[in-house]
Amino acid sequence: MNKFFPQDIIIRKRDGGTLTREEIGFFARGVADGSFADYQASALLMAVFWRGLTPQETFWLTDAMMRSGEVIDLRDLPGAKVDKHSTGGVGDKVSLILAPLAAACGLKVPMMSGRGLGHTGGTLDKLEAIPGFRVMLSVPEFRAILAQVGVAMIGQTPQVVPTDRKLYALRDVTGTVECIPLICASIMSKKLAEGIDSLVLDVKFGEGAFMKTRERALELARAMVEIGRVSQKPVRALLTSMHQPLGRAAGHTTEVIESIECLKGRGPADLMEVTYALTGHMLVLGGVAEDEAGARQKMEAAIANGSALQKFREMCIAQGGDPKVVEDYTILPAAKKLVTVKAPAGAKGFVSEVNALKCGHAIMALGGGRAAITDQVDHAVGIGDLIKIGEPVAAGTRLCTLHVNDDAKGAHAEALMREAIKFTPTAPKPEPLIQDLVQ
Amino acid sequence: MNKFFPQDIIIRKRDGGTLTREEIGFFARGVADGSFADYQASALLMAVFWRGLTPQETFWLTDAMMRSGEVIDLRDLPGAKVDKHSTGGVGDKVSLILAPLAAACGLKVPMMSGRGLGHTGGTLDKLEAIPGFRVMLSVPEFRAILAQVGVAMIGQTPQVVPTDRKLYALRDVTGTVECIPLICASIMSKKLAEGIDSLVLDVKFGEGAFMKTRERALELARAMVEIGRVSQKPVRALLTSMHQPLGRAAGHTTEVIESIECLKGRGPADLMEVTYALTGHMLVLGGVAEDEAGARQKMEAAIANGSALQKFREMCIAQGGDPKVVEDYTILPAAKKLVTVKAPAGAKGFVSEVNALKCGHAIMALGGGRAAITDQVDHAVGIGDLIKIGEPVAAGTRLCTLHVNDDAKGAHAEALMREAIKFTPTAPKPEPLIQDLVQ
Repeated sequence: MNKFFPQDIIIRKRDGGTLTREEIGFFARGVADGSFADYQASALLMAVFWRGLTPQETFWLTDAMMRSGEVIDLRDLPGAKVDKHSTGGVGDKVSLILAPLAAACGLKVPMMSGRGLGHTGGTLDKLEAIPGFRVMLSVPEFRAILAQVGVAMIGQTPQVVPTDRKLYALRDVTGTVECIPLICASIMSKKLAEGIDSLVLDVKFGEGAFMKTRERALELARAMVEIGRVSQKPVRALLTSMHQPLGRAAGHTTEVIESIECLKGRGPADLMEVTYALTGHMLVLGGVAEDEAGARQKMEAAIANGSALQKFREMCIAQGGDPKVVEDYTILPAAKKLVTVKAPAGAKGFVSEVNALKCGHAIMALGGGRAAITDQVDHAVGIGDLIKIGEPVAAGTRLCTLHVNDDAKGAHAEALMREAIKFTPTAPKPEPLIQDLVQ
Repeated sequence: MNKFFPQDIIIRKRDGGTLTREEIGFFARGVADGSFADYQASALLMAVFWRGLTPQETFWLTDAMMRSGEVIDLRDLPGAKVDKHSTGGVGDKVSLILAPLAAACGLKVPMMSGRGLGHTGGTLDKLEAIPGFRVMLSVPEFRAILAQVGVAMIGQTPQVVPTDRKLYALRDVTGTVECIPLICASIMSKKLAEGIDSLVLDVKFGEGAFMKTRERALELARAMVEIGRVSQKPVRALLTSMHQPLGRAAGHTTEVIESIECLKGRGPADLMEVTYALTGHMLVLGGVAEDEAGARQKMEAAIANGSALQKFREMCIAQGGDPKVVEDYTILPAAKKLVTVKAPAGAKGFVSEVNALKCGHAIMALGGGRAAITDQVDHAVGIGDLIKIGEPVAAGTRLCTLHVNDDAKGAHAEALMREAIKFTPTAPKPEPLIQDLVQ
C-alpha cells in the first residue's frame, strides 16, 4: 500500500507548502511506475511552476529522479571523470571540440547528450552526420570506450533516469517547460547518473538560448551549482551570451567541419574562447591543471601537437564512425547547392545583430531542425561562412553561405537570414561572450 | 485538423492571460472527445486554480460544458420550470421537502441531483432509502414524470454535460476542487442543461460546508448569479449557515423520515426556515407568487391541506418507490440498534456548538457515507434527535440518538458526537441561519 496519495502532495504544493523527501521520492518513482498518474504529475508540475521548489526540494527531486533508473558507477575507471553540459544554442558545437580536447589533456569524459529540438541543434544529431557514427550505445560499450579512448559521446540509454524521459515529454505538452527547478533537476539528474566526479555547465542566455535573460540564466546556474554542492560533486557554471550563433557554422555537416577545423587550430575566435574557457574549468576541476593559465597551456599544446584531433579520430573509430572525416570532409552529407547571401546595394557600416533565433529558424526552414522530437533532420543543410557582429559590411559583402537541398526552402531560409542580420553605421560596442562564473 | 494546441492554451492561462471563447470551447469539447488529453486538462485546471477565470471566461466555460452533451428542452411543458441547488451540507434534506412543495404550489421542478461524498450527504442516496425508488431515469421518463406529476428527482444522465463528469473526476484527484470559477461552471452547466427557466441556489458556508467562510460563499454565489444573468435565466442565491447540521436528523432513513414529517407540518424550525425561504424565492421567480409573503401563504397552505405531501406520494409512485413510506416509516431500512448519547455528569448550561463536520464524520464512521464515489452507503444508519445550538443541557440530557448496525462503528461515532457537541454556561447569541440574498 502507498503511504501517500498523489492529490495530497499536489495540494500541499498548490498551497505553497514544502514537500518532504519521502513525498518527492514517491512522486519520482510513481511517475516511472504509474502510481503517480500522468494527469496527477502534470497538475503537480503546474503547481511547481507556480510555487517553485526550495533548493532542498530541488535536490531531493534531482536525487530521486537520478535513482529512478541505473546510476552508472565509473569509480573503477582511473582518472577524473568530468563532463560538460550546455543549455543549448545555435551553432553550439563546443562538445565536439571540448570532449576530445579534455580527454587529450588527461580527463575521462563520459558525455551523454541529447537531440536538437526547435531552433537549437543537438550533439547527437551532429555526430550522426559522420558516416557510421553510433550514438546509441549500451552502458557496457560506453564504459569500454571510456576506458580505452578516454571519451565517449552517446545518447541517454533507456535505463538512465526514466523519470526524466516521462516528465520531459509531459512538460513539453503541458506548458511546464520554463521552470528553473524542473530544468535544474532534469539536467542534473542525468549528469549525476553518468558517474561523473565534477561538471562544468555552459548556461546560455539571449535571443537564441532557452533562457532569454542573464538574470534567469544566473538563477538556473546557481540552482545547478547548489545541487552539485549538496551532491558533493563540484560544479562550475559559465554564463555565456547566445545573441548571435557561436562560430561561423550552424547545421550538422557544417558544424562537424568547423569542429574539426577547431581541433586543427583553425577555429573561429569566439568558438575557441568558449571552448577553452569551459575545457579549462574541466581540467582544473579534474586536477590535471593547477589553474586556468596552466590549463590553457595544456589545451593549446594538445591542439598544436595534434593529440586532441587524434582523440577525436579514436572516438570516431570506437563508435563506428569513419575516421577519414578528419582529412576528407567530402565523406559528410553534402547539400545540392550553396547559396551565397550578400549584403544588399547601399549596405554600409558594420554588422550590429545576427539574431540567433532567426538563424535557428533558417536551419529549420532548410530542413535541418526538428519541430517535433520524432522528426528526421537533414544533416547536409545549414549555414556556413556566417558574418559576426562588429564585422564591416558594404554592398555585396558575403553574409553567409546557405547549404540548400530545396530551392523553395532555401528562399525561405535566405529571407530569414536577411531578417536576422542587421547593420549599423558605426561599429557596435562589443559585448563580452563569457559574462559570469558561478561556483 | 485542430485550430488550437492544448499547450498554447495552457501557457496563456499559466501566464495570467485571458482565453478566448473558441479556446475554451476547444477545451470543453476536447476533454469529452480526448483531443485535450487528461494530463493537459489537469495542467490547465491547476493554471485556472492559480490564475482564475474572468466572469466572461467562466460563462464561456459554463456554456461550452453545457453544450458538451444533451441540453434538455422543456419549453413545450406548460408552467415555469424552476430548480434549486445546494452546495451541500450535513443534514441538508431540503430538496426532499422543497421539490414536492414547489410542485404543489404550481411549479415544474426538474431536479437532477448528485450522490453524497465525504461528510456531506446526497439527495439521490436519501431517495434510494425508499424501497423501489429509482433515480436513474432516462430523459424521456424524466420529461414524462415532470409533465404528469410536476416534479421529478433524478441523477444526472450520461448524456448531460459529459465534460463535467470527466472534469469532476479529474479535479478530485488533482487537487483542483476548491476553485470558485470551476465550481461555478460545474454547477451551472448541469443546472442550465436541465431546461430550467430560473434557479435558486443555497450556498452554504461554515464548518460542515464546502465553503468554509461567508466570504468564499458570497464569491461563489455572485459568480453563479452572474452566469444566470448572462444566460438570461434569473438566479437567486441564499447564503445559509452550515455550522451545525440542518434539522435534527442526518443519514438516509432518518432524513427521509424528517422530510416527510416536514411535509406533514411537523418539521424542525431551522429546516423549515431554510425550506420556506428557498421555495419562496422559487415561487416568486416562477411567477406563481407575487412576493415572499404571498409565497409563504401558498406554501403553508400546501403543507396544511396535504397537497405537498400528496406530490411527494405521486413522485414516489411515478419513480417506482413505495408510497406507503408516507404513512409507515417501518418500510425504510432500519438499523439494528438505537444508541442514546447523553450529556455527561456535571454537564450544565447550553449547547454552544454542534460541529457539522464532526457529525458528518460520525455518519461516515457508522457506514452511512462515502470516502470514494464507488463506495456503498448503509441507508439505515445515521443520527436522529439531534440537540441544537442554544438548547439547555444538564447531566443525562439526550444529545442525539445513533442508528447503529455495528457496535465498534457505533462507539467510534459516539466518540465523534461527543467531540462535536460543546456546552457553555450561558445561552450563546443566536446566529442567523440565512445571512444573505444575492440576485
